[in-house]
Amino acid sequence: MNDDTLQQIYDHAVQWTREAGKYIREKMKESISVSTKANQDDLVTDVDRAVERFFQEKIAASFPHHRLMGEEGSYEAIKDLTGTVWILDPIDGTVNFVHQERYFAISLGVFTEGHGVIGIVYDVMNDELFTAQEGKGAFVNGQELAKLSEMNLNESILSFNAGWILKDRKLEMLVEEARGIRSYGAAALEIAYVAAGRLDAYISFHLAPWDIAGGYVILQEVGGVATDYSGKELTFLHKGTFFAANPYLHKKILQLLRGS
Amino acid sequence: MNDDTLQQIYDHAVQWTREAGKYIREKMKESISVSTKANQDDLVTDVDRAVERFFQEKIAASFPHHRLMGEEGSYEAIKDLTGTVWILDPIDGTVNFVHQERYFAISLGVFTEGHGVIGIVYDVMNDELFTAQEGKGAFVNGQELAKLSEMNLNESILSFNAGWILKDRKLEMLVEEARGIRSYGAAALEIAYVAAGRLDAYISFHLAPWDIAGGYVILQEVGGVATDYSGKELTFLHKGTFFAANPYLHKKILQLLRGS
Repeated sequence: MNDDTLQQIYDHAVQWTREAGKYIREKMKESISVSTKANQDDLVTDVDRAVERFFQEKIAASFPHHRLMGEEGSYEAIKDLTGTVWILDPIDGTVNFVHQERYFAISLGVFTEGHGVIGIVYDVMNDELFTAQEGKGAFVNGQELAKLSEMNLNESILSFNAGWILKDRKLEMLVEEARGIRSYGAAALEIAYVAAGRLDAYISFHLAPWDIAGGYVILQEVGGVATDYSGKELTFLHKGTFFAANPYLHKKILQLLRGS
Repeated sequence: MNDDTLQQIYDHAVQWTREAGKYIREKMKESISVSTKANQDDLVTDVDRAVERFFQEKIAASFPHHRLMGEEGSYEAIKDLTGTVWILDPIDGTVNFVHQERYFAISLGVFTEGHGVIGIVYDVMNDELFTAQEGKGAFVNGQELAKLSEMNLNESILSFNAGWILKDRKLEMLVEEARGIRSYGAAALEIAYVAAGRLDAYISFHLAPWDIAGGYVILQEVGGVATDYSGKELTFLHKGTFFAANPYLHKKILQLLRGS
């Protein structure tokens, strides 16, 4: 793919993401006036589908040979990443969407021949847009993110759901060694936060390709490392574990988790 | 204390909080240009002291008989809550301040004769101001917060540091029963989030009066309940455990934690 084509895809992807964000904010505003949990449950399902359909139509019109992998139906059909594939999560952090009406994101990664070239993570209610193109750096609201710098585990802030401790007791070592543990409940945002140095690692035991594809490309651009929980390369074709980190911490944490 | 006096204290408290917030944002902006962790460590100490001194001077000038309880020196001198006491944390969430440059708050509670009458929690970087006066409701950026409504534990989002699980394994029952666990690393914000229904309970094993006083008053106004971790009344004179919750969950969670 040449630079002009990549730039064209990027420009469209950013514009469509912003349009989808605006649509979500309007729907949210209408809904809050009659806010109940059941109401929000319906809303998240509707919005999820509408945003995926919106991207599907836009992509089909502008890039008819590209494919879309998303939660709503198109996942099962995609068995490989040949050509160009848009990997979309219309709402990453649906529990936050329903319960908090904030702290959720649109997550989009564009992959060509299995290789991530564009990453977008949009914190819709906070209007904070993380973007990256391969080889051109990562940005938050247009401001370039710094490369991740060397650090020690005892200075780090890590993020994972407390529930994972019950699945793997080794995580308790991280709780003891790190400076702090956080959990925000939205994978795409948490990966973007690792890229921005707000967090230094993020671990999950159950994510889909669309949860991680956008954040992955952003993280690559600042020198971050993302693998599965055992340190193996990600496929972006299957659900599984996930471990993103500052490059100086990724190996240290893997050693710590494996060493016992 | 009559209504006019209370209103006067409230108006000053809000104005001074906003001024302090503006000062912190400016300092943060200057500092980010030469950002290192050591630099941010110095900044948080400087800003902590400067904001507490600012409140001390303002209170002394406008309300000479009031006392200030804060982290920087005035805590040890205060043995009771007679008269009017301002309980201030200039920066709640110092680790977030240093590491993330966001997600910290100014927390202020005003107590008369041991009784909370004004609560303010200000998310400085996000410009989100939670306020309450006793008997007049709680607000976020001027919008009134709804009374907390009935809910079940399996629909709830709770917040506590993963580290507390290592101190009390009973918390693992909450991890299993709740819909989600979050952790933001700023007690005052997390209490305000319980008041706003974004979280349904918040637990900590080690907080000071200035971490909780502002959020406590806000929470009271929406019908929330705050005690120590064993369910006993808070004194606002000593450091200790803390447990704030939706009123329908407070008893349920205590029963669950005590029952085993």
